[in-house]
Amino acid sequence: MNELRINGDRLWKSLMDLAAIGATEKGGVKRLALTDLDRQGRDLVVRWGREAGLEVTVDQIGNVFMRREGRNPSLFPIVTGSHVDTQPTGGKFDGNYGVLAGLEVVRTLNERNIQTEAPIEVAFWTNEEGSRFVPVMMGSGVFCGAFSLETAYAARDLEGRTVLEELERIGYLGDQVPGKHPIGAYFETHIEQGPVLEDAGKVIGVVPAVMGLSWYDCTVTGMEAHAGPTPMGLRCDALQVATGIMQEVVQIANRYPPYGRGTVGMVQVFPNSRNVIPGQVKFSIDLRNVNDALLDTMHEEMLAFVAATRKESGLAIEVERVSYYPPCPFHPDCVNAVRAATEKLGYSTMDVVSGAGHDAIYAARVVPSGMIFVPCKDGISHNEIEDAQPAHLEAGCNVLLHAMLERAGVVA
Amino acid sequence: MNELRINGDRLWKSLMDLAAIGATEKGGVKRLALTDLDRQGRDLVVRWGREAGLEVTVDQIGNVFMRREGRNPSLFPIVTGSHVDTQPTGGKFDGNYGVLAGLEVVRTLNERNIQTEAPIEVAFWTNEEGSRFVPVMMGSGVFCGAFSLETAYAARDLEGRTVLEELERIGYLGDQVPGKHPIGAYFETHIEQGPVLEDAGKVIGVVPAVMGLSWYDCTVTGMEAHAGPTPMGLRCDALQVATGIMQEVVQIANRYPPYGRGTVGMVQVFPNSRNVIPGQVKFSIDLRNVNDALLDTMHEEMLAFVAATRKESGLAIEVERVSYYPPCPFHPDCVNAVRAATEKLGYSTMDVVSGAGHDAIYAARVVPSGMIFVPCKDGISHNEIEDAQPAHLEAGCNVLLHAMLERAGVVA
Repeated sequence: MNELRINGDRLWKSLMDLAAIGATEKGGVKRLALTDLDRQGRDLVVRWGREAGLEVTVDQIGNVFMRREGRNPSLFPIVTGSHVDTQPTGGKFDGNYGVLAGLEVVRTLNERNIQTEAPIEVAFWTNEEGSRFVPVMMGSGVFCGAFSLETAYAARDLEGRTVLEELERIGYLGDQVPGKHPIGAYFETHIEQGPVLEDAGKVIGVVPAVMGLSWYDCTVTGMEAHAGPTPMGLRCDALQVATGIMQEVVQIANRYPPYGRGTVGMVQVFPNSRNVIPGQVKFSIDLRNVNDALLDTMHEEMLAFVAATRKESGLAIEVERVSYYPPCPFHPDCVNAVRAATEKLGYSTMDVVSGAGHDAIYAARVVPSGMIFVPCKDGISHNEIEDAQPAHLEAGCNVLLHAMLERAGVVA
Repeated sequence: MNELRINGDRLWKSLMDLAAIGATEKGGVKRLALTDLDRQGRDLVVRWGREAGLEVTVDQIGNVFMRREGRNPSLFPIVTGSHVDTQPTGGKFDGNYGVLAGLEVVRTLNERNIQTEAPIEVAFWTNEEGSRFVPVMMGSGVFCGAFSLETAYAARDLEGRTVLEELERIGYLGDQVPGKHPIGAYFETHIEQGPVLEDAGKVIGVVPAVMGLSWYDCTVTGMEAHAGPTPMGLRCDALQVATGIMQEVVQIANRYPPYGRGTVGMVQVFPNSRNVIPGQVKFSIDLRNVNDALLDTMHEEMLAFVAATRKESGLAIEVERVSYYPPCPFHPDCVNAVRAATEKLGYSTMDVVSGAGHDAIYAARVVPSGMIFVPCKDGISHNEIEDAQPAHLEAGCNVLLHAMLERAGVVA
C-alpha cells in the first residue's frame, strides 16, 4: 500500500478539461456560481464521478457528495473536496484542484481494486467564491450552520436573481437537508494562494490552522482647508493622522511574527482635491493571526494606538469592527494524517497556516478537518495567471490519498 | 487728510446688493465667469462706477477699468480691484470685496471733493476663479502675458462654449489690447482665505509676498497580493511605502516655518480592496514657501527622501512635477504704502504671506503691486458659509484708501 501513487497525468488532464469550461483569453477561468458555465462544470464532474462508480447526493443548497462505498457502510465517510465555481478573473486551480484531486484518489483506488473500511466521498460546495452571491463560502456555511438556508436562498446577484431560483434553474436544488450528510473526516487540497512554500522551496504545506481575521472601518475626521493659506500649526489634517495609524497597522503585525498580518487595503480621502487639506479619511484595517490570544493582543494594541492618536491629534477617530472570523485550528487527527502521509512519501514540507478562507474552515466547525497545500506560482491566485506545477499537484494528491486511506482504513 | 475714512455701511450695503445676484439658499453666491449672472454683476458694478463719474474701458479679454481722472492725466493711474466672478459654491466676499472697496474709495473721494495727482482706477479681471474656464486668473494672466489671448479665447466650458463667444454674448468683448492699459501701481484688498489673522486676533494683514508652489504627482508601485496568505516579509505594500512619503511631506514643511506648507490632498489606491495588499498608490504633493531658496530646499529634501525610500523599499517610485508657480514678492513701494497706512490708522496688524492665488500675482509681473488682507471667519473661503466682519472690511478699505492716496498724491 505504501507504494500506491495517483496518476499525475490523469489528474492534470482532468484539470485542463474542466478549465476549458469558462476559459478566458488570458488563460484563466470565469465560472461564476450557479451560472450555465457552473452547471456545465458541475455536470462534467458528476459525469466523471458516475463513470467512476460513485453515488451522487445533492443537498438543498446544491452541495454535491459523490460516494464510493466502504466495506462498512455504517461508518461515516472520509470526505474530500472543494469547489467548482471561480472568481470572475479566476484561475484553473483554485477549488477545482481540490475536487479533482478527490476524483483522482477514487480513480486510483478503483484501478487497484482497493476497498476501504469507511466509505470515501468526493464533495463540492456551492458558491465558495462569493463573487456573484454573498455570503462567501455559502454551501459549507449553510452546512455548518454559520447562516441559514433561507439567508442563502435569498441572496441576489446584480441582476436580481436569487440563489434559490438559480439552483433550481441549473438543476442542483437537492433534497438532503444541509448538515445532515454524515462526515467522518474532511480533507481539502488547495493551492497555497500565498508565496510561503515557493519562497521556502517546499512541496507540501501541512496546514495546522487557518488564521483568524478581524476587519475594521476607521474614519478620521479633521477640517478641510486651503493647502496654501493654512499654516501647518493650524491644520487638522485628517490624512496626516490617518497615515500614522496605517503605518502602525503594519508595525503591529510585524511585532507578532510569523503569522501576524496587518493590511490597509482600502482608502478614501475627502474631498480628494490636490490643494485642499483632507477633512476626512476612511480606511479599512485587516488584522490576522493564528490564535485568539495573538489576534486579541493585536486588536488591543491597535485600539490603544488609535486612542493615543486621538488624544495627541485632537481629531475625531472612529474604529468599528465590521467582521470577525476566529482562528480555526484543524483537528489533530487530520493534521497528523497529512503530516504522516507527507513524511511517508518523502516530500519536502513545512507547516503553512492558511491566511485565506476555505470551505474547510466551515467544515471544521462540525467535523474533524484538515488541509493540504501545494505551491502556486509567485503566490498569485484570484487571477487569470494563477499557475501551479504538475509535479506539485501530483504530490498533493498523493498526500491526500494516503491521509484518506489512513483515516478510512484499508481492507487487507 | 489723516482723518479721512470710508463709509463702512455703504461698503457693506454694496457688498450685500452685489451678493444678491446669484445668491444661493445657503447664503453664498454662484456667479460663474461670463454667465448671465456674471453679466448682471458686471453691469451693476459698471453702473455704480458711472454713477460715481468713472470712465469705463474694457479690454479684449473683458477686463474692466473704471477711471477717476487725476490732476495730471499723463501720470499712470493707481489701480485697485479684484474679480466679480465666484466659485460654484462661493461666498459674498472673495473678489467682490476687492472691487467694491475700490468703488468705496472713489465714492469717499467724490463726496469730499478730493483731487488726486495721478488718476485712480477701479478694475475687475475676467474669470479669476477658473471654475468654468481654465486657466484660472485668466484676465490678469492675459494682461501680464502669462498666456496668450488666443489660449484664453479658445477655452471651453463643459457645454463647449468658448470664452470668446461668451465675452461677446454678454457684451464684455472690448477693444483695448490687454497689457496696454497703463498702471502705475496695483493694490488688491481681499479676505485672507486662511486662519492666520483670526487666530492672532489682528485686523489687517500686510502681504509682503505670495508663496511659490510646486505640485507633484507621485506613484508608488508594489505588488498586489492577498492580505491573508502573504507574510509581512514577502510583501511589496505600495501603501505602506507611500504613507511614509506622505508623512515626510508634512515634516518637510514643518522644518521650514513659518511659511512652509506641505500637503497631500489626493490619494488613489489600487485595487482599493479590503483584503488585497495595495499594488499601486498615486498621490499628489503640494509644497509651498515664501522664497525660491526655501522652496528649492523643500523640493530637494522631498526628492532625496523619495530616493532613499526607493532604495530601502525596493519599490518603483515616480515623482513628476506637474505645476510650478515661483514665489512672488510684492513691490516694496506698495507693501510699504500698505504698512504705513495701517500704522497711521492704528489697526492691529501682522504680515501675512498669501498662500492662495490672486490677480495681484499676475499684476505684479508687470507693475508694482501689493495686497491688503482682512480676516475671514474660521479661515473659510470657496464655500457658501464664507463670512467676514463689517468692521474688518471697513478697516481694510480705509487702509486701501490711504495707501492709494499715498501713491497717487493728493492735490492740496
